[in-house]
Amino acid sequence: MFRNQSSLRRYANRFISRSSTALASLNRPTEIDVQELLKLLNNRPNGVLVAEDGVSEDLTRYNHDWTNQYKGNSRVVVRPQSTAEVSRILKYCNSRMIGVVPQGGNTALTGGSVPLDCEVVLSLEKMSDIHSLDPTTGILTCDAGCILQNLLDFAAAKDHLVPVDLGAKGTCQIGGNISTNAGGSFYFRYGSLHANVVGLEVVLANGDILDMGCTTANLKDNTGYDMKHLFIGAEGTLGIVTRAALLCPRLPPSRCTTLLACDSFDNVLNVLEIAKKSLGEILAAFEFIDGPAMNLVCQTQSKPLPLPASQDCPYYVLVESHGSCAEHDQAKMDKFLNILYEEDYVVDGVVAASLEQMNAMWYLRESCNPSCVSSGYVYKYDVSLPIPEFPRFVEELKEALNDRTFCSLDYFNWGHVIDGNLHCNVVCRGNFETNSSLRERIDRYVFEGVEKRGGSISAEHGLGQQKRKYMAKLHGSETLSKMYDIKRLFDPNRILNPGKYLPEDCR
Amino acid sequence: MFRNQSSLRRYANRFISRSSTALASLNRPTEIDVQELLKLLNNRPNGVLVAEDGVSEDLTRYNHDWTNQYKGNSRVVVRPQSTAEVSRILKYCNSRMIGVVPQGGNTALTGGSVPLDCEVVLSLEKMSDIHSLDPTTGILTCDAGCILQNLLDFAAAKDHLVPVDLGAKGTCQIGGNISTNAGGSFYFRYGSLHANVVGLEVVLANGDILDMGCTTANLKDNTGYDMKHLFIGAEGTLGIVTRAALLCPRLPPSRCTTLLACDSFDNVLNVLEIAKKSLGEILAAFEFIDGPAMNLVCQTQSKPLPLPASQDCPYYVLVESHGSCAEHDQAKMDKFLNILYEEDYVVDGVVAASLEQMNAMWYLRESCNPSCVSSGYVYKYDVSLPIPEFPRFVEELKEALNDRTFCSLDYFNWGHVIDGNLHCNVVCRGNFETNSSLRERIDRYVFEGVEKRGGSISAEHGLGQQKRKYMAKLHGSETLSKMYDIKRLFDPNRILNPGKYLPEDCR
Repeated sequence: MFRNQSSLRRYANRFISRSSTALASLNRPTEIDVQELLKLLNNRPNGVLVAEDGVSEDLTRYNHDWTNQYKGNSRVVVRPQSTAEVSRILKYCNSRMIGVVPQGGNTALTGGSVPLDCEVVLSLEKMSDIHSLDPTTGILTCDAGCILQNLLDFAAAKDHLVPVDLGAKGTCQIGGNISTNAGGSFYFRYGSLHANVVGLEVVLANGDILDMGCTTANLKDNTGYDMKHLFIGAEGTLGIVTRAALLCPRLPPSRCTTLLACDSFDNVLNVLEIAKKSLGEILAAFEFIDGPAMNLVCQTQSKPLPLPASQDCPYYVLVESHGSCAEHDQAKMDKFLNILYEEDYVVDGVVAASLEQMNAMWYLRESCNPSCVSSGYVYKYDVSLPIPEFPRFVEELKEALNDRTFCSLDYFNWGHVIDGNLHCNVVCRGNFETNSSLRERIDRYVFEGVEKRGGSISAEHGLGQQKRKYMAKLHGSETLSKMYDIKRLFDPNRILNPGKYLPEDCR
Repeated sequence: MFRNQSSLRRYANRFISRSSTALASLNRPTEIDVQELLKLLNNRPNGVLVAEDGVSEDLTRYNHDWTNQYKGNSRVVVRPQSTAEVSRILKYCNSRMIGVVPQGGNTALTGGSVPLDCEVVLSLEKMSDIHSLDPTTGILTCDAGCILQNLLDFAAAKDHLVPVDLGAKGTCQIGGNISTNAGGSFYFRYGSLHANVVGLEVVLANGDILDMGCTTANLKDNTGYDMKHLFIGAEGTLGIVTRAALLCPRLPPSRCTTLLACDSFDNVLNVLEIAKKSLGEILAAFEFIDGPAMNLVCQTQSKPLPLPASQDCPYYVLVESHGSCAEHDQAKMDKFLNILYEEDYVVDGVVAASLEQMNAMWYLRESCNPSCVSSGYVYKYDVSLPIPEFPRFVEELKEALNDRTFCSLDYFNWGHVIDGNLHCNVVCRGNFETNSSLRERIDRYVFEGVEKRGGSISAEHGLGQQKRKYMAKLHGSETLSKMYDIKRLFDPNRILNPGKYLPEDCR
């Protein structure tokens, strides 16, 4: 494990990296620290991973985000197997003023799970026990490091559904989902994690373990300030989520999926309105993919568009229902589609006739991201907007960026239209390097466009490293001041995920 | 308004009441304070109500709770008409160290909205504007003093449903619902207020106004710590809720209601399981009323039990579905009832054939509380339990209290069985005075019974004055310590709702 410890000794000075403000008061981990951390994990093989001298080859996956935008230089990764171990690690790092970056599946988009420099990475990947699923209440209790797909499979085998589902489900971990308040495709039907997390266990920077309804896991508990919500979406800056109790609904016995093509965004809105009326309580997802994104996916993934009559339509819509009675659900879906055709709201549409076809439709949606990434550097934006504003927002962005860049820009947009959540992607085609001045320019236009429409610059992907600098514009000084107070309360030494979330000038 | 101000002058000393610890550091409002408060409300007639000399006749309704358990002695009630006025009042009271008790409809059960002694009551009753309902998102924005029934009516006229509904809806105010995290009868279907409050405006003790997503009101906003959740269920001890943005689903076009009689609690559980399977996504409420409570209601309200074959059944169940298609919903309900009869899970059942019959069924459920109150002093308990434990819990309580009281005790139980929420009522028949030693004895048994089953001693009615003393037993010292920290952060002078919620020894 310790192939060359001298490299760590050389780093044993105060952080003097590019992120000097956030790290200025923290120490780099030394060789002695590594030995102490290893002792805290009972000298377990691979409990602590240490980089080789000079380059961090072994630790690359902990130091990079998949969008190739953020890169850390951590040389120490700790992998606890229990809450008690997490507590011991944090207590030690807090006493030594060592920065700690909690990391789940590292699938985020804003650099929240990537170290700035050589902080210790605390990976939850070895804490993946699923503890129970109560058949009466549907409450599932599990460790933070559980991969979402494993939870979905476990719950499904017991006739339940984990109420969060997203493209990264094969990699992301539930602790990360909770810490970023991941929305996902079925948010409209099942609600946010604030709605579904009924208990949380969290370890604070000083090693204190807070059990906030995780052990008792009651559907209703009105005793005391409901502090668990502070940790939902806090990106590990207030404490590390180690365990969760999630309310899981019954698995819907019937699912219907349809892919539709619309010739205008007005018709997307018309389809949405009819879906709400016709599908009612079984409406589970209403996603949109714009024409360029759909074409890119079909080309990149070599998949034919399953709607022959709709080539080059500007908008595609994926609608899914989750219900308890196949016959009723099919009748509702038929009614929905009949109205769409009668009213000429869609150019073409296809209903999945099998699970395979259903998965193929979702594959198109979930391939939007990787297809973009494979075609150039992607400047990704995740915003909330009043739904009718989606096209105007994109048009204004295009106009603003027109002729002002060194490379040819393409625009690919998709998202959870029913939640007002637009994923807007500006791709510098053929160029795979990020360009900070271009990023700043796009950031500014996006931010201003969202602000003037009363939206949110982060709908479900949090703040991380990318968006923290806008916080002062987003919230009143009183609100922001209280956020600083809360940070100070839970992590006074600011060792947790330093340089993320709140702006630099955190007092 | 100032009929005799000398009475106030006499109170202008430090609080030395029965609640000495909580009020020890606070000042009674003086005549000068009243004049200053009146100025802050632009000398508006009835902006400030002041009690007459000696007795607080005019202010009785602000000083009493309806269960006749809690009684304050407030002589000053302020009634702001805007958030700015709330801010000015709190800033003044904070600077003068005067306790402030926020009050909505005053329908709570644990004394949270009643002053301990002569704190200023801040009534939200004059802040009742409904601002908007966005037809695309369903987000309703309103002032905290809106009466819930008015919101339900307003939303219904716009084809939407406010996702909280309870017996006190004609009196309770939405700010109070939020501040107590009221559950209500449709919690299972629509979720908690943590799920549905998308924005909140709150005034802190120092007068700072926090707008936490209330103005922008996006369905998804992941920018910064989601602090609004701290105020949901905090009973006004951290700040005063002045405005809210609530996510309202579409009004279900179809409602079916059925009342069933079961000869055992096992069969109640069987009915619950079949309801979840047969009704699925349209299952909206699953309430139970035990036999003694149903008999009491029928006698007290002079209403016949609409189930002739089920006299003296030990359990009655009220099931309601909310769906989008009457034909489908009726088919699901028929299937549900057929299974129940085939399996002999119910003794008798009746389906409401009209809105009138539906309302009559709900009248029985909502009359449980007033029927109890009219028959003797009611020791009311609102607990969460593992659902199968309901009958054993009640039996143990009866055994524990058997032959140990001065009066004859009756037990009437009902609740939201689907949420694990039991409303347990011990009635001292014919005696309308509370007895503190009896209360303490029942409290102890209830608390111990709930604790050993891993439940919660407050499912939806909060802590108020009644349950705060148990907090130290309910939460670990680390969790409780953080609750104190948060209280100190938002209300350092402890002027807000003093003597409630957190135990006396709040540092």
